[in-house]
Amino acid sequence: MGIQIGVIGAGECGEAVCKLARAVGEAIGRSGAVLVCGGLGGVMEAAAKGARAAGGLTVGILPGFSRRDANPYISVPIVTGLSHARNVIVARSADALIAVAGGYGTLSEIAIALKLGKPVIGLRTWAVSDDVIQVDDPAEAVEIAMKRAAEVSG
Amino acid sequence: MGIQIGVIGAGECGEAVCKLARAVGEAIGRSGAVLVCGGLGGVMEAAAKGARAAGGLTVGILPGFSRRDANPYISVPIVTGLSHARNVIVARSADALIAVAGGYGTLSEIAIALKLGKPVIGLRTWAVSDDVIQVDDPAEAVEIAMKRAAEVSG
Amino acid sequence: MGIQIGVIGAGECGEAVCKLARAVGEAIGRSGAVLVCGGLGGVMEAAAKGARAAGGLTVGILPGFSRRDANPYISVPIVTGLSHARNVIVARSADALIAVAGGYGTLSEIAIALKLGKPVIGLRTWAVSDDVIQVDDPAEAVEIAMKRAAEVSG
Amino acid sequence: MGIQIGVIGAGECGEAVCKLARAVGEAIGRSGAVLVCGGLGGVMEAAAKGARAAGGLTVGILPGFSRRDANPYISVPIVTGLSHARNVIVARSADALIAVAGGYGTLSEIAIALKLGKPVIGLRTWAVSDDVIQVDDPAEAVEIAMKRAAEVSG
Repeated sequence: MGIQIGVIGAGECGEAVCKLARAVGEAIGRSGAVLVCGGLGGVMEAAAKGARAAGGLTVGILPGFSRRDANPYISVPIVTGLSHARNVIVARSADALIAVAGGYGTLSEIAIALKLGKPVIGLRTWAVSDDVIQVDDPAEAVEIAMKRAAEVSG
Repeated sequence: MGIQIGVIGAGECGEAVCKLARAVGEAIGRSGAVLVCGGLGGVMEAAAKGARAAGGLTVGILPGFSRRDANPYISVPIVTGLSHARNVIVARSADALIAVAGGYGTLSEIAIALKLGKPVIGLRTWAVSDDVIQVDDPAEAVEIAMKRAAEVSG
Repeated sequence: MGIQIGVIGAGECGEAVCKLARAVGEAIGRSGAVLVCGGLGGVMEAAAKGARAAGGLTVGILPGFSRRDANPYISVPIVTGLSHARNVIVARSADALIAVAGGYGTLSEIAIALKLGKPVIGLRTWAVSDDVIQVDDPAEAVEIAMKRAAEVSG
Repeated sequence: MGIQIGVIGAGECGEAVCKLARAVGEAIGRSGAVLVCGGLGGVMEAAAKGARAAGGLTVGILPGFSRRDANPYISVPIVTGLSHARNVIVARSADALIAVAGGYGTLSEIAIALKLGKPVIGLRTWAVSDDVIQVDDPAEAVEIAMKRAAEVSG
């Protein structure tokens, strides 16, 4: 088992946020970690696309009832049928999480991750707590996530 | 089926917050609505105590494996075994929610409730969004919750 | 908190099975126990109808996203959004369960209940194990369920 | 995304059943499909060991709170914190399932899989329905599972 990095964010994204998410995914793929996300579109798809382009493995924890809901860059679809409750599984399955922008769904995931004591790194996201490590650069986000994940799982 | 009002907050509370939660519970009990909460201690217990004192019915959506985890003021224990994922069930089962103070668990519940489009009224809680209706008075919180719940379910 | 008896069975039922389920519900209502079920139609509706007619309280653990999915005889709707995973919550929340006929969904619920060590009484249902106490009479089923539930929770 | 085959069975197994499970895992690994299981010991561990020995990828959908609960042959641990409710995720995430012996937990998983309309192949397991395709040989079980999975997802 290698390190698993979660990427969380909205199911739709504008150009700038999608570009950020893709860069995060690429850095995760290059690092050799597994990318864990919610498996749908937007930030999830852009990050998974980046990770696959860099040769990485991607896991999509889907809220619905079919693997066909997964974006095309998901290697391993996990079909939960649990709707928003699947957010908890994303947080639990990641050794560290990177939040990219996001709405209320992402906020709930950040809060659950903090509740579980997981490292959370933020890129243009909710500034609800000093426990979220806010950075500007995707590569820096992944570097911190990898370092913190190694500490947690080491 | 009557109106169901959710009360969310931490499993431990100081005197001031416990007093607030109890007053919220009493007002819910008097209103005839069912109180839905996480079933444990702190804000959940104080609110349930207040509701029962006012003759109300209380539901506790428990995270663990036994009804014995419920505080003594829970009329109907729901045993989920789902840990934090049970927060989503509290949010879904309530027609409106009142957040009293709270930490990251409460924040996750507020965020899920907002994601689901539920009315959220806040007492000394996270000010993450204008969508949370911030008030100072427990009776006012319940009044707004009842009114908004009636609109939503009506 | 009083004793909670689960009633499980299919979402549709023919006349004979519906009559059985209604008699089970009536006996539960008369006994003063809370009836816990999946909240939908068929056996769940017939049992809830019987319990309400006898003055009982009924809880419906719904698989979907709205309290409007509940049958008209549910006093307290619990909205899970978890689809079939809500079956586990029915089994955990009941002190004893009565299975009335049923298909694969009911079989999964019987199996989970047995896995959890809950007493399971069967009326014209799956004969998968001697651990399911098979009876023919609804009143007898409830009598055994109440007795076994009191032992478990006592 | 490739085909995902679920292997279900008890957390402990005697020599004969463990050998069967390992052979099932090897055949899945050789076939190029991803093995999905509950991630713990017994049948789950033996199957995962076999799949890894044959170069396959293994996913463990864990019931508890830590990836450390996973057996050593799990490539991708999914940490649910949902206890038995995670069984539903195993059934949903697999295109076809192979049940090897098993107790009540396995029975619940078979029933959920049948409820979802998934192909279920059985090796020395519960004979609850003609819908479970009973075979004696691990390689035959995997061959049928792969064929049925391709039909379902094709």
